[in-house]
Amino acid sequence: MKSRAAVAFAPGKPLQVVEIDVAPPRAGEVLVRITHTGVCHTDAFTLSGDDPEGLFPAVLGHEGGGIVVEVGEGVTSVAPGDHVIPLYTAECRKCKFCLSGKTNLCQAVRATQGKGVMPDGTSRFSYEGKPIHHYMGTSTFSEYTVVAEVSLAKIDPAAPLEQVCLLGCGVTTGLGAVHNTAKVQRGDNVAVFGLGGIGLAVIQGARQAGAARIIGIDTNPSKFALAQSMGATDCINPKDFDRPIQDVIVEMTDGGVEFSFECIGNVDVMRSALECCHKGWGESIIIGVAGAGQEIRTRPFQLVTGRVWRGSAFGGVKGRTQLPGMVQQAMRGEIQLDPFITHVLPLERINEAFDLMHEGKSIRTVIEF
Amino acid sequence: MKSRAAVAFAPGKPLQVVEIDVAPPRAGEVLVRITHTGVCHTDAFTLSGDDPEGLFPAVLGHEGGGIVVEVGEGVTSVAPGDHVIPLYTAECRKCKFCLSGKTNLCQAVRATQGKGVMPDGTSRFSYEGKPIHHYMGTSTFSEYTVVAEVSLAKIDPAAPLEQVCLLGCGVTTGLGAVHNTAKVQRGDNVAVFGLGGIGLAVIQGARQAGAARIIGIDTNPSKFALAQSMGATDCINPKDFDRPIQDVIVEMTDGGVEFSFECIGNVDVMRSALECCHKGWGESIIIGVAGAGQEIRTRPFQLVTGRVWRGSAFGGVKGRTQLPGMVQQAMRGEIQLDPFITHVLPLERINEAFDLMHEGKSIRTVIEF
Repeated sequence: MKSRAAVAFAPGKPLQVVEIDVAPPRAGEVLVRITHTGVCHTDAFTLSGDDPEGLFPAVLGHEGGGIVVEVGEGVTSVAPGDHVIPLYTAECRKCKFCLSGKTNLCQAVRATQGKGVMPDGTSRFSYEGKPIHHYMGTSTFSEYTVVAEVSLAKIDPAAPLEQVCLLGCGVTTGLGAVHNTAKVQRGDNVAVFGLGGIGLAVIQGARQAGAARIIGIDTNPSKFALAQSMGATDCINPKDFDRPIQDVIVEMTDGGVEFSFECIGNVDVMRSALECCHKGWGESIIIGVAGAGQEIRTRPFQLVTGRVWRGSAFGGVKGRTQLPGMVQQAMRGEIQLDPFITHVLPLERINEAFDLMHEGKSIRTVIEF
Repeated sequence: MKSRAAVAFAPGKPLQVVEIDVAPPRAGEVLVRITHTGVCHTDAFTLSGDDPEGLFPAVLGHEGGGIVVEVGEGVTSVAPGDHVIPLYTAECRKCKFCLSGKTNLCQAVRATQGKGVMPDGTSRFSYEGKPIHHYMGTSTFSEYTVVAEVSLAKIDPAAPLEQVCLLGCGVTTGLGAVHNTAKVQRGDNVAVFGLGGIGLAVIQGARQAGAARIIGIDTNPSKFALAQSMGATDCINPKDFDRPIQDVIVEMTDGGVEFSFECIGNVDVMRSALECCHKGWGESIIIGVAGAGQEIRTRPFQLVTGRVWRGSAFGGVKGRTQLPGMVQQAMRGEIQLDPFITHVLPLERINEAFDLMHEGKSIRTVIEF
């Protein structure tokens, strides 16, 4: 079938909104009509060409919501008409990882997803007869996309897709990092590095958890007001200090925070985030994605004296199992999605969403098909 | 009083066994007659001059056992005649750290201990009228030493001090890292980097915990037999492979180990230890002490995909609370100390203990006073 889509034809170039061909879903696959999608930094990172695993041409997008149109052979967990959120972290419930009970990093479709194809090794997208790559197993920048059954969370059809699409990536990542990965407890002190969408979601999660102090750190003070409205008790700008920001935070918190979150992808900031943790028990969670080949570093003494360094992908959330409940929380107002949506644009103007992001003017732009 | 002691007068020089003066214990302090002490790599590290915090002259030694001779004002938890193990990690039961329930890193005497003096800022040791530094709050290379009350574990007087002195450092560090820090469970796969005293203690702990595979890694294959006798199921030499040892271990264990332990103090090995952990849940515990200024590094992707990097000091063990029970375990044979003691020497020959260590010929030499 024909589908309007924003295609990344080449690294560093704007997306082009064109009409592509979408082949029907094969066994274990599902055709979804995307109604809304957020535009995330990871899309921008891949589009920039800096992502060494980025493939072109491709249909990017991984933070969407939509409605099932057609299911392939053997698909049982969703049916046409169901509302769904595509998952870039699948949940097959059969692999060693899913069965471990210790991680959300299902490996069922991992290899092919990384190669920009469906699990059978081929693409459902083409333009003028030439194949176009899938992206993160989701490709939500197309009105019609094909997704593996194990990569779909079925949600309440009463939920507003224009909002809950954000649970497909950023908001879930931040909330999950607080609740699943860090397990922040009432009274803990928390530091959040980077006040973009993920950082704001971490702040929201920390407030839900009853954190005592929630310290937001960003070099752009224009982000402080929103962070404070979402729960940050203190906002600080590293540029205002002539010593390492970790020292400032350790002093502010009488020894350091219980948990810190790196929501930028900067390896130097990851070090600060670790080193602002409290000796003996503070834990730092890396959420941001660093550039290719970049490395984190610190003195091992930081760990030997009790700090813990960990990371979080998709907030440790098992999408098919946990996202439906998070959608319910959003419908009850326990998760607030409104504040993240600073702009809404039609697909034709999707490149403006990237501009707004690069200019630091948006938290999330939601694209309406 | 007069005391025979092995004094480190200068970095890089052999110890000198001389008669020093030991002043009586002041308030909160205890005079202990050391009957036995192990010689540990940390003593050698400080003696070498490579330890930037090393102070000279000093009475080194931190793995001892002895008998209380005299107590200072206000001391209530021990009395003359009690058998004790001096603790380089104190346990005051009053500070923020002790009360946290999250760490053994009591800070009560930390600052002065690091400066080589007693908590009141002065030394009890002198030689020819000039003060000599204390070391790690223990200074067990002296027949008589003065230790803070909070730095003494009172143990069963029936326990053989010539063996249980090893619970003052190495063996406790290894066992505790397995049980307190990692919390190894039955069926877990474990990798142990470095088959010295700490590594062997980790192996013993992993066997106690019911680990499935216990992989010992060392560049000196002469250490393999003892490691296997203590529970290692596999021993491998990185020199036998032309690819990174972490890749070998990941392959051996179908994805990596649940827990790895670095027992050397080499920052490159620390990286291997992290990267041989299983994606999604593997945890690496740094036990070894790296050289001054050295840094660990890895790609943050290692953590974002679920590996955890942590450290352990004195095995996370609270000395006054937990060591008495470990001494009982040793007396019942549940902790085996015999295999660690490869040499026993009188104080006068203590420099030979360092030679044996540097030549890789000893696990532990116990010094008898």
